[in-house]
Amino acid sequence: MAERSDCIFCRIVAGEIPADVVHEDEHTVAFRDLDPKAPVHVLVIPRRHIASISDAADTDAAVMGALLLAARDVAAVEGVAEGGYRLVVNTGAAANQTVHHVHVHVMGGRDMRWPPG
Amino acid sequence: MAERSDCIFCRIVAGEIPADVVHEDEHTVAFRDLDPKAPVHVLVIPRRHIASISDAADTDAAVMGALLLAARDVAAVEGVAEGGYRLVVNTGAAANQTVHHVHVHVMGGRDMRWPPG
Repeated sequence: MAERSDCIFCRIVAGEIPADVVHEDEHTVAFRDLDPKAPVHVLVIPRRHIASISDAADTDAAVMGALLLAARDVAAVEGVAEGGYRLVVNTGAAANQTVHHVHVHVMGGRDMRWPPG
Repeated sequence: MAERSDCIFCRIVAGEIPADVVHEDEHTVAFRDLDPKAPVHVLVIPRRHIASISDAADTDAAVMGALLLAARDVAAVEGVAEGGYRLVVNTGAAANQTVHHVHVHVMGGRDMRWPPG
């Protein structure tokens, strides 16, 4: 799936909308959440438009793996790898997915409660 | 990293400890959480021992990708793909990671709140 002009995250990848980018690699871009819920709150997204985890194809395995490894790298760069961090991916209405382009929330810098929402 | 006799999740993979398994593939095993926090609450783990996301190596990309695709499949089989679901991965003390073998929580069947803990 190519870039979607109506997708805010595709527009961030394309540089058409500014974002506070903290990490980039072949498959992913990571930038700070505009409404942070933790001292460190970064979103890791695939460069390519994939609407949700349920829209990922088996052939997207490499991109999916890159998302988790990028999240690992973001946690390290942001200084929360040792203390701990939570990754969250919302899919669909029950989880209140607000942007329909896969994004992994990387949250750290405070104690996270259980259950996770 | 091979199976660890002191790791409860490695022992589940090895069949030494019973679990309510809902999905298996080359890289992953998924089973119901014993202390569910949602009507559907399944853990997806790699067969191979990886202590946390921060302990994953770049060469683990395929396994990491398989975790997210298995979570996708679990959501479908469990009937929450359409309604929505949340994936959560805890790393370290601040996120209260309790078993030091990577696990992706697949949670659905109810509305999930924000922030996620």
